[in-house]
Amino acid sequence: MNDRPLAVTLGDPAGVGAEVIIGAWKALRAAGPRFVAVGDAATLAAAGGRDAPVRPVQSPAAAGAVFADALPVVDKPLSAPVMPGAPSPVAAPQIAQWIEAAVAFALSGAVCGVVTAPIAKQALHGAGFAFPGHTEFIGALTAARPFAGVRGPVMMLAAGDLRVSLATIHEPFAKVPGLLSVERIVETGRVTAEALVRDFGVERPRLAIAGLNPHAGEGGTLGDEEIRIVGPAVEALRALGVDARGPSPADSLFHEAARATYDAVVCLYHDQGLIPIKMLDFWGGVNVTLGLPIVRTSPDHGTAFDIAGRGLARPDSMIAAIVLAKDIADRRARA
Amino acid sequence: MNDRPLAVTLGDPAGVGAEVIIGAWKALRAAGPRFVAVGDAATLAAAGGRDAPVRPVQSPAAAGAVFADALPVVDKPLSAPVMPGAPSPVAAPQIAQWIEAAVAFALSGAVCGVVTAPIAKQALHGAGFAFPGHTEFIGALTAARPFAGVRGPVMMLAAGDLRVSLATIHEPFAKVPGLLSVERIVETGRVTAEALVRDFGVERPRLAIAGLNPHAGEGGTLGDEEIRIVGPAVEALRALGVDARGPSPADSLFHEAARATYDAVVCLYHDQGLIPIKMLDFWGGVNVTLGLPIVRTSPDHGTAFDIAGRGLARPDSMIAAIVLAKDIADRRARA
Repeated sequence: MNDRPLAVTLGDPAGVGAEVIIGAWKALRAAGPRFVAVGDAATLAAAGGRDAPVRPVQSPAAAGAVFADALPVVDKPLSAPVMPGAPSPVAAPQIAQWIEAAVAFALSGAVCGVVTAPIAKQALHGAGFAFPGHTEFIGALTAARPFAGVRGPVMMLAAGDLRVSLATIHEPFAKVPGLLSVERIVETGRVTAEALVRDFGVERPRLAIAGLNPHAGEGGTLGDEEIRIVGPAVEALRALGVDARGPSPADSLFHEAARATYDAVVCLYHDQGLIPIKMLDFWGGVNVTLGLPIVRTSPDHGTAFDIAGRGLARPDSMIAAIVLAKDIADRRARA
Repeated sequence: MNDRPLAVTLGDPAGVGAEVIIGAWKALRAAGPRFVAVGDAATLAAAGGRDAPVRPVQSPAAAGAVFADALPVVDKPLSAPVMPGAPSPVAAPQIAQWIEAAVAFALSGAVCGVVTAPIAKQALHGAGFAFPGHTEFIGALTAARPFAGVRGPVMMLAAGDLRVSLATIHEPFAKVPGLLSVERIVETGRVTAEALVRDFGVERPRLAIAGLNPHAGEGGTLGDEEIRIVGPAVEALRALGVDARGPSPADSLFHEAARATYDAVVCLYHDQGLIPIKMLDFWGGVNVTLGLPIVRTSPDHGTAFDIAGRGLARPDSMIAAIVLAKDIADRRARA
């Protein structure tokens, strides 16, 4: 049985992280899953107000006894206060430190998984943070830990009955064709198939692999990546024992009847996967990092500086991310 | 008042055209809209069987009196029979001739609009057909006719409460960035805005313009087309009096709450528009050609050779295409 809490990082203190964490605590305080925030306690207390007391704890082990009455926080204070909606480069070192601390808790077993509130990549890059985002940073932080499987990180988005994995993530549209390779699609597919078994309890995962071009290239007349890259990747996956099919025209993959025919889609670029995910559940989608020795999820929205601190941010996605992280952690603990 | 029928072309005789036309006739024979098929009467009769008699007529004017009892056809026979599922290059000249005849009927006023069943571009190209598809062919066939507005053709897809126009259509993914220009997006937007007023009865059309890159480029860090091309196109449209906004992240444009904020989206590439359209209504989407002196719609599916002749093809999209063509023709007739 898995009684450990999750760790939830504050993310950018100028974003909506604090308020969606507070919203998630209110929704989950009675029945769980329980979690401990990692971040600046003052920022969380300001977001919580009278309704949501915040209580600093020395370690995640103390979180369980506190959770029903207050949001437990491992307090790693900011060097200067940050106002909602006004991102500040001085916060960058703390933002990175909160992620490092949460991952360290997961690696030590003090927490059963990590959920990350959103960060703003631009501000972190200005402060010397060398990773495209959370996914790659956490991949690096966990690289030394052995992992019994094909290693990611692979980014999966889950909403409603749809799961998509991305072969390329935050890349300019024009760079996508040059980044695709048989190896990259095969690795994405293998990590996805293994994660469906290990983390989602799908016994015999079925993968659909999307094409890149309109009508999946229509026999090569509308682009040849399906012939040169995606088709051979599907064949290679099948040779490895993965139940993969495709390349399928992307516009025919996401309606309800199609979704019943697979357990996940490997998408080749960001919007190919994110458009359907956000159509199915704009508020409640979850980002899951596959192929890591620790469990990690996050809401699929950004920092939303424009509405931060105004009580408008919906915690749906944060709640779903916490629930899914606990599901995956419990499934791994039982294995 | 507009009492003229529509013309519906047979499309590829090896595809599902005949059976979806028969299906549409069965659904519409009692209440209309009335239409006359243009194609090979024998192919239609084979698809209709005993349930759906087919009656050759000399001209569209004779269709109205026939329609309740039989499917009227302007018969332009194939030189050799074509079996469902077995496309033949010998049919190519007739396929093109049916489209030409239907367009000529529309230009002469004998029909109030043209609805086209699907063709297979590959077979036609092999026979010397020089156009990427119906849209461009019909654009050329109507180019000499004056048109009081910004001329297309622009391809719009409509399904449920969503309309999308495409700035690029059947282009390989890798070519899309090089094809986009301020002028192209502005022309697509102008044709779309005018068509919303003229053809759809939207008094003050609101356009959303999609970005190309993830998060619409996130300030240029994930691609610069939004800064170089799409943003200036939105500004130019606004300067022309078009209520345009964007560039908007494509993954945040298509959920229900977002769809209530605009009347159409200008999408930059095929799957950006077709993924949401086919998620909203996989079976009933309609393709509309905007900015032409004649009315033209079509189902948004292809020839479906793999299921042709097996009674599996659903006529939903053909029926929706006929109904929408009649709506537009009636609105133009009243103007």
